[in-house]
Amino acid sequence: MTESHIVKSFDRDLEAVQAQIMKMGGLVEEAILKASQSLEERDEELAERVRNGDHAIDELETLINENTARLIALRAPAASDLRVILSVMKIAGNLERIGDYAKNMAKRTGVLVQMSPINGSHAALRRMAREVQLMLKDALDAYIQRDAELAMDVIHRDEDVDQMYNALFREFLTFMMEDPRNITACMHLHFIAKNTERMGDHVTSIAEQVIYLVKGEIPDMSRPKGDQTSVDPKLGKV
Amino acid sequence: MTESHIVKSFDRDLEAVQAQIMKMGGLVEEAILKASQSLEERDEELAERVRNGDHAIDELETLINENTARLIALRAPAASDLRVILSVMKIAGNLERIGDYAKNMAKRTGVLVQMSPINGSHAALRRMAREVQLMLKDALDAYIQRDAELAMDVIHRDEDVDQMYNALFREFLTFMMEDPRNITACMHLHFIAKNTERMGDHVTSIAEQVIYLVKGEIPDMSRPKGDQTSVDPKLGKV
Repeated sequence: MTESHIVKSFDRDLEAVQAQIMKMGGLVEEAILKASQSLEERDEELAERVRNGDHAIDELETLINENTARLIALRAPAASDLRVILSVMKIAGNLERIGDYAKNMAKRTGVLVQMSPINGSHAALRRMAREVQLMLKDALDAYIQRDAELAMDVIHRDEDVDQMYNALFREFLTFMMEDPRNITACMHLHFIAKNTERMGDHVTSIAEQVIYLVKGEIPDMSRPKGDQTSVDPKLGKV
Repeated sequence: MTESHIVKSFDRDLEAVQAQIMKMGGLVEEAILKASQSLEERDEELAERVRNGDHAIDELETLINENTARLIALRAPAASDLRVILSVMKIAGNLERIGDYAKNMAKRTGVLVQMSPINGSHAALRRMAREVQLMLKDALDAYIQRDAELAMDVIHRDEDVDQMYNALFREFLTFMMEDPRNITACMHLHFIAKNTERMGDHVTSIAEQVIYLVKGEIPDMSRPKGDQTSVDPKLGKV
């Protein structure tokens, strides 16, 4: 077996595992959209489909981890190839977490349909979820194309998601203070908002991996921690 | 260089990186304890020390990732050794997340000291944090000793943490309904409770890694999703 033979075989294996990442990413994008749709339309059946669909996402992560471990063991890759393989594992981990948050959103739909809807908040949550889904799509495109510029764009857009979250947090506090009967529903909606904001953080991690692959280092300005509610005393006085 | 020479050298490298994991674990345990202490004693200075200490935890994770990647590249480990190395990376990732939650708890201390304390909740949160810290200690001991029984014990104890969280969730809802002036503080306290429950999930992941290393498979009953508030309609009617 010549050296170029081995190299080609490695590339083929790597492409196969990257295709699995894209498949997993597609399922996760769908889960985000359908979970937020089920919430807005109070569609319990759709919510249940999202919950059940999470198994397929988890199984893909397991498969990807097994395949990457096998790839490392069989091919003993050089440093740069190893970096790519490790990024695959990290991205699979991020996708799995985003899928978990979508599942959790769908679970809460089941509880929220039993309560009065909170004016306008479902639409706002859906816009936030939609933005995260688009960011995820671009982060995965940036990964496949090794496009550091697009990845940096994704990282910046996470600030918008953080702002959407901060605005919703204040809105929920106001709703709860206006009428204590809103408290339980707002607690659940607030969780959904927070989890969507966390999905954005995981998408940012994926984008950071892209920049690391292209440039060899994680961007310094990355991960602007956008949830100001934990540090801003003003928000503590709403 | 003889084969046993190479093997010994690999073992030495592996031991070094496992020592880094234990060091990281020690810092994370300390962060959990001090963050909950700063909350209970309304000690802003201690909270700031926890926040600043998170850098050291993050840097250890980076170092561990670099060392494991180098270990794989240099030694081309066999399947079983590779499994150990990959578990090191996963555990470092879990520890980093737990450290982030502790930092977030310390951040919220800064906001909460500006509000009236909520009766008894800080002590309950501290008990919960203490339990998670003890679970983490045992999970890391189980890792070093490859003790699947102790790891399984940790997984079961996570159910207690989940129950503590569920009880606190109900308590916070009641406080908020009794007096709307409690709402903002309770939202922050509730976040802290939820994040502590999530720390427990990450400790459970570490324990699962131990079982995977010893037995070659992840336990089937693992990860009982203990947050019942997202699915239990009764909690939606508190």
